[in-house]
Amino acid sequence: MPELRKDPIVGRWVIVNTENPRTPRDYEIIPHEWKGEKDCPFCYGNEYMTPPEIEAIRDENSAPNTPGWKVRVVPNKFPALRIEGDLDKRPEGMYDMCNGIGAHEVIIDTPYHYKDICELTSEEIFLVLSVYKSRMVDLKNDKRFKFILLFKNVGELAGASLEHPHSQLIALPMIPKNVKEELDGSKHFFHYHERCIFCDIINQERSESERVLFENQDFISFCPFFGRFPFEVWILPKKHMAEFQNVCESQLRALAEILKATLLRLKKVLSSPDYNYIIHTAPFDYEFCESYHWHIEIMPKLIRPAGFEWGSGFYIVPTPPELAAKILKNE
Amino acid sequence: MPELRKDPIVGRWVIVNTENPRTPRDYEIIPHEWKGEKDCPFCYGNEYMTPPEIEAIRDENSAPNTPGWKVRVVPNKFPALRIEGDLDKRPEGMYDMCNGIGAHEVIIDTPYHYKDICELTSEEIFLVLSVYKSRMVDLKNDKRFKFILLFKNVGELAGASLEHPHSQLIALPMIPKNVKEELDGSKHFFHYHERCIFCDIINQERSESERVLFENQDFISFCPFFGRFPFEVWILPKKHMAEFQNVCESQLRALAEILKATLLRLKKVLSSPDYNYIIHTAPFDYEFCESYHWHIEIMPKLIRPAGFEWGSGFYIVPTPPELAAKILKNE
Repeated sequence: MPELRKDPIVGRWVIVNTENPRTPRDYEIIPHEWKGEKDCPFCYGNEYMTPPEIEAIRDENSAPNTPGWKVRVVPNKFPALRIEGDLDKRPEGMYDMCNGIGAHEVIIDTPYHYKDICELTSEEIFLVLSVYKSRMVDLKNDKRFKFILLFKNVGELAGASLEHPHSQLIALPMIPKNVKEELDGSKHFFHYHERCIFCDIINQERSESERVLFENQDFISFCPFFGRFPFEVWILPKKHMAEFQNVCESQLRALAEILKATLLRLKKVLSSPDYNYIIHTAPFDYEFCESYHWHIEIMPKLIRPAGFEWGSGFYIVPTPPELAAKILKNE
Repeated sequence: MPELRKDPIVGRWVIVNTENPRTPRDYEIIPHEWKGEKDCPFCYGNEYMTPPEIEAIRDENSAPNTPGWKVRVVPNKFPALRIEGDLDKRPEGMYDMCNGIGAHEVIIDTPYHYKDICELTSEEIFLVLSVYKSRMVDLKNDKRFKFILLFKNVGELAGASLEHPHSQLIALPMIPKNVKEELDGSKHFFHYHERCIFCDIINQERSESERVLFENQDFISFCPFFGRFPFEVWILPKKHMAEFQNVCESQLRALAEILKATLLRLKKVLSSPDYNYIIHTAPFDYEFCESYHWHIEIMPKLIRPAGFEWGSGFYIVPTPPELAAKILKNE
């Protein structure tokens, strides 16, 4: 009998195939093929191919928009939203609309074209994460924005159009629907229990332990009981904390380590799958810092959502998270 | 400047690319290639390859599970949920779970392996829709179920594993999250305005007319102002009606016509795209029939959701619906 499991934060149900669970070899994973660095706008020497850089970690005597950087941030050349202008919220008949104000930046993780983030050293990953933080801190000053989504698309199935390792952020003038659902769900739980639901989830996962992958002084990674996707992994700070940009240096170093370890396991067990990861963090000036808890969700792209998923918001999970964690730990 | 537009039912924002809109030739559409009817469990003569049929429209003197049918319904051979058993809702630590009770049926639209539903005659499509209705009426009697999702996956990108034209239904013991959001949103609107939001949307779209594709005595099809996907089309009954299974015969005939016309336009303009369509209908015994309005959402699979969409619930729409409707009407 399959199991129905409920995400306690947003109330989403998933159908977990516990009868004939699929293992990694049952997924059709197309081996990743590099297209090559020819004309790559993110490689050394091609800095002129991107808009001028916003921020970079560079060698002391290197000039902006030249080689010598370790992590480089540029505006997205084809931004989904425009940075210039004022918000103009207005009706259109019965509908609501607004001009498309926002920031859309690309964080080039590394000068190495052929190194996925998990193949960088922990120190290099720490630098990438430090830039994530510093971009968030900077954009928080722009009062037009309410929320920043920081995410990574790796591979075509995950929506990446360039293969050189990079991350993206989009700053938005409103709190997105999915974020609001998480905020409302965790606030509701807090009002009822006077506890953070994410802290409870950490305790639950630690006490059961079978879904836990890694743990260090500051972070834990596990395949959540109610994950939507096979081999989905979450990374959470063990200490309650609502906003990503409040992490301190030692936490960022611990995060770099657990992120590297987790992504390396996924890469090995699933043969370099395409994947997304997303930083879930509280909006700027959010008044419920007690109830929300920032975290990273990693979603390997092994299956496609179909009509059932689009129509219902239910997800069918062919590999139970317990089995996924077991395989990720042991293979 | 791109435009942000809000779905007035569920409050989702989309980013519409009005500056450099993409036309059909800007999408990478892989021409559909038929794999062939060899070993197809849905073709005439292979009825033994499926579980025994639940219902069929057949020639008078043909026996169940033999050829001679026009539309045939069978249990899914690899069901996401099981039909036998009682619901057993229970806690698992802090989590909620339940055994996977539900119905998962396949409606084989036609004996013709190589005919997409829009290539059938209106009379043949009417028969398919009649079977949709009769399955819903039948499953409504099973008190374990609260909602039926009826959907179609066409092509691999849309999640179809078999190419022979078919539809699916899944009956669920709980109201799915996405459905609940629509119900709550439309109920909220009704409490405030004492009107059905979908009826208002129909009026708005008819008065602006530029996004309308087809209209007959009972139905209208249009590219909604706030659609999530490029070339997304909705079909709604013009008269307020909460539940699909209450349609009468003449309405089903009108629906067959507008569905055929709409899907044929999508097929022509987008070179036979993979697509999903989903019937959105009120749950069984829903007490807010005044506020909800059943409809069909058609979603061609031209782009993939990436980290931004997964993390935010925002969608980036590269082709504005006004342009999509213009192309669908004129090309």
